[in-house]
Amino acid sequence: MTQTATATATATITVADARRAIDAKTKPLGSLGRLEDVAVRLSVLQQTLTPTVERARVCVFGADHGVADEGVSAYPRAVTGEMMRNFDRGGAAINVIAAACGATVDVIDVGVDADLASSANVRNDKVRPGSRNFLREPAMTDDELEAALSVGASAVRRATADGVRVLGLGEMGIGNSTAAAALLSALTHEVSSVTVGRGTGVSDDILARKCEVVDAAVRLHASRRDSEPNARELLRCLGGLELAAIAGAAREAARHGIAVVADGFISTVAILCAGRMAAGAESAVDLGGAVFFAHRSAERGHGVALGACEALNGWDARPLLSLDMRLGEGSGAALAIPILRAAAAVMSDMATFASAGVSAGDNADRHAGDAIA
Amino acid sequence: MTQTATATATATITVADARRAIDAKTKPLGSLGRLEDVAVRLSVLQQTLTPTVERARVCVFGADHGVADEGVSAYPRAVTGEMMRNFDRGGAAINVIAAACGATVDVIDVGVDADLASSANVRNDKVRPGSRNFLREPAMTDDELEAALSVGASAVRRATADGVRVLGLGEMGIGNSTAAAALLSALTHEVSSVTVGRGTGVSDDILARKCEVVDAAVRLHASRRDSEPNARELLRCLGGLELAAIAGAAREAARHGIAVVADGFISTVAILCAGRMAAGAESAVDLGGAVFFAHRSAERGHGVALGACEALNGWDARPLLSLDMRLGEGSGAALAIPILRAAAAVMSDMATFASAGVSAGDNADRHAGDAIA
Repeated sequence: MTQTATATATATITVADARRAIDAKTKPLGSLGRLEDVAVRLSVLQQTLTPTVERARVCVFGADHGVADEGVSAYPRAVTGEMMRNFDRGGAAINVIAAACGATVDVIDVGVDADLASSANVRNDKVRPGSRNFLREPAMTDDELEAALSVGASAVRRATADGVRVLGLGEMGIGNSTAAAALLSALTHEVSSVTVGRGTGVSDDILARKCEVVDAAVRLHASRRDSEPNARELLRCLGGLELAAIAGAAREAARHGIAVVADGFISTVAILCAGRMAAGAESAVDLGGAVFFAHRSAERGHGVALGACEALNGWDARPLLSLDMRLGEGSGAALAIPILRAAAAVMSDMATFASAGVSAGDNADRHAGDAIA
Repeated sequence: MTQTATATATATITVADARRAIDAKTKPLGSLGRLEDVAVRLSVLQQTLTPTVERARVCVFGADHGVADEGVSAYPRAVTGEMMRNFDRGGAAINVIAAACGATVDVIDVGVDADLASSANVRNDKVRPGSRNFLREPAMTDDELEAALSVGASAVRRATADGVRVLGLGEMGIGNSTAAAALLSALTHEVSSVTVGRGTGVSDDILARKCEVVDAAVRLHASRRDSEPNARELLRCLGGLELAAIAGAAREAARHGIAVVADGFISTVAILCAGRMAAGAESAVDLGGAVFFAHRSAERGHGVALGACEALNGWDARPLLSLDMRLGEGSGAALAIPILRAAAAVMSDMATFASAGVSAGDNADRHAGDAIA
């Protein structure tokens, strides 16, 4: 509490300050809609009325999943490693979309079950070659969870050192839509029929199997203790190494005032988990103030995950884009980065009515109902 | 008919070709959602499986409106010229958003009632200093309409010469939301209560006055003739010089295979008008194939305008963004350009399953229902 009070007292840029600054720009009040909300949030997060998105990056955390053994995916586990090599060579969607959107990519092996030593552009932070099968045992030990959280935090510290101000968080891992659905069901007490989706496109049979696995896993790990497990424990039991890395990255980014761009379903569930962990911690970082949600995924459980984020204190979980995407890899996060960049430019670079000599009256004193036409 | 048949026969890239190419990329089928639709459309428009959005530009056409004398705006007519000077100095929303989105800006005076000779970055293509008051007489003579259409076409030819492949079309003009609403009402037979909005934020009183003016103007110009006027004639009577320039630009861009990005309400109405004009012409250019709709504006009539575009043969009028923006200037068009750039990159630069050695089966032979997870 003392920390929070101090932080508030020393804050120099409030929401009201930022709103006043944007209202003075040469445009009708509120006419840039949600772009203005993003600009205001970036100003408060970066504590400046000239926020910047100059350097943007997308982290892609890759890991395998023990639960993939349960037949929850139409694709072999080997695809995780193969896609990591594709990222390494620059041929995947995230490579080309990030480049088109002015962002660099940091690919991190936090637990892929493949030897990626020859992939020079993949960072080796492997905690173990895939999480354990959570239908039989917890996905991670406590040490493994801690290590995976640290991998995420380290990625943020590298980004900070490179001057990055906006960080998209994406993932790759065959089986991880099952892990995310299980974690989401446990966090929200929602049944599998609303948290489990087709991932990247499984058949009806595999979809039904995914639901069975999720329900059984949630029951198993609830039954292993007397009291309700906290978010950290649910992440350990039902998550995955890349989900933990995303949670750790989001937490660390918020501490540094770095804007986090959540990608789709899996990224959102990991960030929801981080939000629940932060809410339960003594010295709470303002994770909600740092997280922007890139897009509304076509994956079924994403709405539930976004709703749970929106319910967290002070979070704005309205996605910026809605393009029926469901790929992951951070592809949606990359696509939202230009929106943040434009919002920062509006706040930082636009003229004011006064500076431009535009006779539109004092925009700051007007209300949305009586402006230009 | 002969022309169309020949064009079809010589086309080398069909929608099916482009869809097949994108389905071979290293991603689950359809998992990039509407980004894939944009990529396919760009391929067909540019007639290549390596489309590019390397050079993008936003044209901002400025003009004044005689109907502004009717008290339809809370702002003086002088603001049009003042904002043109703001564009000239780079301080307006469109300047900073376009820069953030990797697009240049071409500001064109097609009819501003101000001397902009000292504004070096504003092109002087002034047809006359503002359209006539369409509550009393047609907004333009036939020669003036033709000249304004040509100003738009010239802007496209300059862009083509500079290697621009994507062109956003925006506007500035006090009173032009009234002109656009009148034109939309006349084109669609919708009443003013659904086509007139608050523009950039007028009061209830001015809103009511706008509706009166629109209804009266539509009646006046319908009563001046026996048969129903065509789209070109409606544009002449009820449009504005910048609306005509946008219509002329869209038409010319389609002829050159340049992607057009419609901005918000006013830009969409002008492009709808161009679409109706093209549909009525003998040698129809495929305008629908060239136009992408940037965003769903907060302005009331935009939904009606988009619906009317969607109803045109072969048009896809689903907006890419929905961020409650209502500024104009081409700001929404600029913000959508990175989406087109990312879509082009997906088609042009992503690896295929074959080239990347990813064992995801033959993606081209699979269906959306049985892919990865």
